[in-house]
Amino acid sequence: MTSGQAAPAARPTARLEGERVTLAHGSGGKATQALVQAVFVEAFHNPRLDPLEDGAVLEVPETATNGRPRLAYTTDSFVVSPLFFPGGCIGDLAVNGTVNDLAACGAQPLALSASFIIEEGLALADLRRIAQAMAKAARAAGTEVATGDTKVVQRGKADGCFITTSGVGAVHPGARLSIANARPGDRVIVSGPVGDHGATVMLARGELGISAQVASDTAPLNGLVAALLDEAAAGTHALRDPTRGGLATVLNEVAAASGVGVVLDEAAIPVRTAVRGACELLGIDPLYVACEGRMVAVVAPDLADRALAAMRAHPLGAEATVVGEVTAEPAGMVLEKTAFGGTRVVDMLSGDPLPRIC
Amino acid sequence: MTSGQAAPAARPTARLEGERVTLAHGSGGKATQALVQAVFVEAFHNPRLDPLEDGAVLEVPETATNGRPRLAYTTDSFVVSPLFFPGGCIGDLAVNGTVNDLAACGAQPLALSASFIIEEGLALADLRRIAQAMAKAARAAGTEVATGDTKVVQRGKADGCFITTSGVGAVHPGARLSIANARPGDRVIVSGPVGDHGATVMLARGELGISAQVASDTAPLNGLVAALLDEAAAGTHALRDPTRGGLATVLNEVAAASGVGVVLDEAAIPVRTAVRGACELLGIDPLYVACEGRMVAVVAPDLADRALAAMRAHPLGAEATVVGEVTAEPAGMVLEKTAFGGTRVVDMLSGDPLPRIC
Repeated sequence: MTSGQAAPAARPTARLEGERVTLAHGSGGKATQALVQAVFVEAFHNPRLDPLEDGAVLEVPETATNGRPRLAYTTDSFVVSPLFFPGGCIGDLAVNGTVNDLAACGAQPLALSASFIIEEGLALADLRRIAQAMAKAARAAGTEVATGDTKVVQRGKADGCFITTSGVGAVHPGARLSIANARPGDRVIVSGPVGDHGATVMLARGELGISAQVASDTAPLNGLVAALLDEAAAGTHALRDPTRGGLATVLNEVAAASGVGVVLDEAAIPVRTAVRGACELLGIDPLYVACEGRMVAVVAPDLADRALAAMRAHPLGAEATVVGEVTAEPAGMVLEKTAFGGTRVVDMLSGDPLPRIC
Repeated sequence: MTSGQAAPAARPTARLEGERVTLAHGSGGKATQALVQAVFVEAFHNPRLDPLEDGAVLEVPETATNGRPRLAYTTDSFVVSPLFFPGGCIGDLAVNGTVNDLAACGAQPLALSASFIIEEGLALADLRRIAQAMAKAARAAGTEVATGDTKVVQRGKADGCFITTSGVGAVHPGARLSIANARPGDRVIVSGPVGDHGATVMLARGELGISAQVASDTAPLNGLVAALLDEAAAGTHALRDPTRGGLATVLNEVAAASGVGVVLDEAAIPVRTAVRGACELLGIDPLYVACEGRMVAVVAPDLADRALAAMRAHPLGAEATVVGEVTAEPAGMVLEKTAFGGTRVVDMLSGDPLPRIC
């Protein structure tokens, strides 16, 4: 209710004692206020969050709504293990993941929420590092954390820190997107190499004694999607970011929802050499490995070239490429033409879970 | 993007095997789809959720926005232990908690999100019961779960089930609410007896061998707040639901943010006999014990009678009562006139946490 109002002078100053999160930090009383002020308000500082009301009030910009407002709304929980990995941490992952789900709806973020479930004993230095990474990621996406919550559970009842973000966004006026909208002849475009994030987290656990020069691709894709839709909204039928379950699962969802087939060209699918090597050692197919900074676009053939050019002109889409085509048959299935001239069925991920990569 | 569109026929039907949640249910692949369809879509079923896009698209009703839209936005994580307790469970608590945070912003819910972090091994029957309770609570508040997420972590890495909800609401056109808006002379109204929820959860843990006829007050307060604001919006300066930290903490937040004092009348504060007895046995002060179905309203003196009458006319405010008054001094402090004629300082909760009551 106090949008734009400065934090009142009477607010207690933050005095954070000790080096670890305690149960008292989740009590709702003085210690909670100290933690919220010293870590979260310190990192996220903005006029909507600072008054610490029970919620934030958003003024939806008229220009964003173009008449009757269309808002995108999404949420994701993040339970990645380990909390820190090459290329990022649970914090930027939680922001980028929600920004990218909004982007997949054709939306630019208006505000994010962030809710923390913290295990007693987490180092405050780690929590600060996570919060700072979230603030930086939100700035990079042109948005901010407007509201949040903090809970603390006893040692052994959580695993360090879980973060749930949600996001509200303004949908591009021209966007008409759905995984049920793919049509035969549409091109399938991927914005860059697949599998970077999942392979990185699997290796970062160190259980396998394998090391490789890989890093998470975690990045905010709202700018890339804006560039795509500004150029080719009328032909962009579906967007989806291939996180858990990877490219294979996303395309199976499109095939099932649209009642179409998808035929992939194995040779065209970009996979970094280090990621391919890591996946071979891990015994997993990169098509099923999560990305956190890639978008899959299903675009009508007459606008596919313009869509591809618009994506390649954006720094996060420089390696965008057409990897396949939508077909009428076999409805509901994804096939891949292999490098050896054969064809294989690319089923949805089943069994062999890759737990907690996001 | 497919608001109002029926779920496509090609969507795989839900086949849920076994009786417990497994890591595969969090993989993002076939098992995740089966769980989401058989438990969450089954319970929440609505046109915005059913297509299972990366987010939902909300059409903000023009009537709700009255010109330039003002949206309330909030989030909360729920880690209550035990998951089920007299009067409710983590599911209805998660819905009502977020509905009530929106209500404290003067808003009616437009949509909710729900994100689940589930411990491997949770009984599917419990998860279904929780989801059904959420759906019922959302219906009671006139809203629905429009988007969600599910993660599964290994046994021992969470405690049954954590739920994070967020909510988007349309702010009442006349609402001008902030905990910084309290003014000397304002009346402090509580919508009903305090401490029911916290006392119930503490006893439900069974660690103390105490039993009592208490039940959580978990309930959605958006209807009560609408009735209050329709009658007395111009004089309603602040609303806050006294959850963690209880009535004492909420009033300390108001006193600090507004730079005013609050003087409570101990004899006027409603506490159920069974709750008072339970709190005595537990060694805790009911003023610090969480409610989940009560609202604190700070109302200008000239409209306090009308505000009180409007609240009492609503089923969830039948026991509403004036419990205190805002004063100029001592700024930033809450005092209580005791039944014995004395005055004591009611500080913000510090130390002695009551963990995981919400």
